[in-house]
Amino acid sequence: MINATIITIGDELLIGQVADTNSAWMAQQLNAAGIHLRRRVAVGDVWNEITNVLNQEKLNADIILMTGGLGPTSDDITKQVLCEYFDAKLIVHEPTLNQIKNLFEVILKRPLIERNLKQAEVPDNCKVLFNKRGSAPGMWFEENGKIFVSMPGVPHEMKGIMEDLIPALSAHFKFPYISHRTLLTIGVGESFLAEKISSFESALPFYIKLAYLPNFGQVRLRLSASGEDKINVDRELDIFFTELQDKVKEFMVTNVDESMEEVTGKILLKNNKSVCTAESCTGGYIAHLITSRAGSSSYFEGSVVAYSYAAKESLLQVNKNDLLEHGAVSETIVKQMAKGALQNIKADYAIAVSGIMGPGGGLPQKPVGTVWIAVGNNKNIRSQKFNLRFDRQRNIQITAVTALNMLREFILEEENA
Amino acid sequence: MINATIITIGDELLIGQVADTNSAWMAQQLNAAGIHLRRRVAVGDVWNEITNVLNQEKLNADIILMTGGLGPTSDDITKQVLCEYFDAKLIVHEPTLNQIKNLFEVILKRPLIERNLKQAEVPDNCKVLFNKRGSAPGMWFEENGKIFVSMPGVPHEMKGIMEDLIPALSAHFKFPYISHRTLLTIGVGESFLAEKISSFESALPFYIKLAYLPNFGQVRLRLSASGEDKINVDRELDIFFTELQDKVKEFMVTNVDESMEEVTGKILLKNNKSVCTAESCTGGYIAHLITSRAGSSSYFEGSVVAYSYAAKESLLQVNKNDLLEHGAVSETIVKQMAKGALQNIKADYAIAVSGIMGPGGGLPQKPVGTVWIAVGNNKNIRSQKFNLRFDRQRNIQITAVTALNMLREFILEEENA
Repeated sequence: MINATIITIGDELLIGQVADTNSAWMAQQLNAAGIHLRRRVAVGDVWNEITNVLNQEKLNADIILMTGGLGPTSDDITKQVLCEYFDAKLIVHEPTLNQIKNLFEVILKRPLIERNLKQAEVPDNCKVLFNKRGSAPGMWFEENGKIFVSMPGVPHEMKGIMEDLIPALSAHFKFPYISHRTLLTIGVGESFLAEKISSFESALPFYIKLAYLPNFGQVRLRLSASGEDKINVDRELDIFFTELQDKVKEFMVTNVDESMEEVTGKILLKNNKSVCTAESCTGGYIAHLITSRAGSSSYFEGSVVAYSYAAKESLLQVNKNDLLEHGAVSETIVKQMAKGALQNIKADYAIAVSGIMGPGGGLPQKPVGTVWIAVGNNKNIRSQKFNLRFDRQRNIQITAVTALNMLREFILEEENA
Repeated sequence: MINATIITIGDELLIGQVADTNSAWMAQQLNAAGIHLRRRVAVGDVWNEITNVLNQEKLNADIILMTGGLGPTSDDITKQVLCEYFDAKLIVHEPTLNQIKNLFEVILKRPLIERNLKQAEVPDNCKVLFNKRGSAPGMWFEENGKIFVSMPGVPHEMKGIMEDLIPALSAHFKFPYISHRTLLTIGVGESFLAEKISSFESALPFYIKLAYLPNFGQVRLRLSASGEDKINVDRELDIFFTELQDKVKEFMVTNVDESMEEVTGKILLKNNKSVCTAESCTGGYIAHLITSRAGSSSYFEGSVVAYSYAAKESLLQVNKNDLLEHGAVSETIVKQMAKGALQNIKADYAIAVSGIMGPGGGLPQKPVGTVWIAVGNNKNIRSQKFNLRFDRQRNIQITAVTALNMLREFILEEENA
């Protein structure tokens, strides 16, 4: 099996000022290509730390992918470290030099200075992986059959280089085939699921692995297998995956690896229907989730985020007396919000939410975490109350996912009626 | 100096199905407490991998914090590994047992099964760190003066345990003092900034470190120093920080470590003013950023997310003929959106955005990345065009941050007029 390590380099990762989103994305790419990621390590912009982790990781990994520390400023030292580590001297890489000149003079229209030009220099014994989206090139080194690759830490630049890197690695190594099947459940706990499928799990052959991936009211179940024979691996996996789906069908939202907003978006697209949202406590997050998907304009019309009473009245025609009588977090109001959205935005379906996300704003009869969700269309609106027990960010996220699932169920039941 | 390592455990981290947000948060907490985080390592749910990384990291770290692998399902093995590693046997922890019973029977109202009860078992030589938000307790081990702590990977459970852990670590060790000063610039590149402050940077004493933290049109500059004498460290740091602020003042948004939405929110709060948004291409993301902050209801009234022409007309009274003549992504329309929002939502200020975020939807005269932003109030609306060159997610993020900054500048200029 080909083993890989990801090394992310940067002081900012160690004081937590920047969340590392690169590693997860890179891990996905490696996994899809059949490369086993064994470890991810983050170290600071410190000479010894970088050489130490390289020495350590090359003992167990065939591929070492590095990101970060290639910027133009003096805290970035990765290129200098690699130059010494691989006993190289720096030379100018002409295509990168032209790229940098073009980037600054034509696109950014910013003054081009010496330290930007320095970014066109590369160790003379590396293969350059051209950075089509920025100024710091990727670098490919070989030592005793191991591959070392250094890439910039800027996510979209790294991704551009990875697009070319994966095929190059595939050509260099002969990877075993790895395959996964993933399904998503909602509204049921990890341990309850585990109990439900315990006999299935214990009967799995050793070369098929089951993982539980919980995430705010959702649990992903993933079956994985690897082997030399692609057809056999996939056929076996499909047999067990069919059995697994049957065991959890009452909680299953989708049997492909996709998000709740993708599932709901696809149903809307297939039915040629559209949705709108009326959001209070989620503050536009449901609309953001839906519109994060390219192509969502085919099924998303718009939203009203009504935080204040005044906005609820003017944008959604919520009744002032009902607001005063029942409060904004109530069944009466969330249903009026859904109706108002349908009327004003003219989508086929509406999602409406009103709740108390915390940390402040709780009341004795409506503590933090109280949420009303309504979904429906012009014929019928359904509502439900939830009591969440997380922090503000998680309460917003779980409310959004729950609301999208309620809409999914509403549409499916309507189809089956 | 006290060194720490964070070890995150879970197969899901190595195939990229879950982004690791725990590490960044934990890093922040350690940093604030004056603990130097030397490394972060992610490994799979594999017995040897866990023991290997423990053996490796304890050579260089005084504190080893682990998260993950404590769930009730069979892929979670961290507790068993630690039991063997520290030569312990499992015993029932009564307070945790009661917590689990209460969680399932009273709060979740889900059946309590054997594998949940197993979570109340802990190695007999660890100190239990009670998990007030879930069923898997934290565990504190000591070996040769080193501290090993294992916590669940569920973020809000880990955070609850960390709240008690940091004071316990502070009591156990005597930490040197570490201090940071951070400022945020917007609209200027990392290398241009570096050039502007190069003489400042090269004159810094060895014990003060400067870091550049770029993030989509924003660059954070951070000065760090550590030492035994808190007063001296802070006094020296303040002198250099004052000089740094002066050097970059024309690009500086704030001189504390806060986000663009916090900066704008604070100005609104101070002036007792409110804002609303009219969003097309950002799909509610600006509203989401604003409402992510607790207390935002004091200065945020609401938003209209108008994706379709129809929603722009009905919710923002955008003129149909102008839409047809100029297109939705135009100065005329974005100004009308701002006006419509001010009129309907009745906030003091409005932010309006319309653009093409990609990957589809580009036109020859309006390529992907074309964005119009308008900010203003009932007296005056200002607009500006931008040409972004990132992917969909980044284009949405940079548009939101740029719009919030335009509003900040608008308010400050109004104050100074």
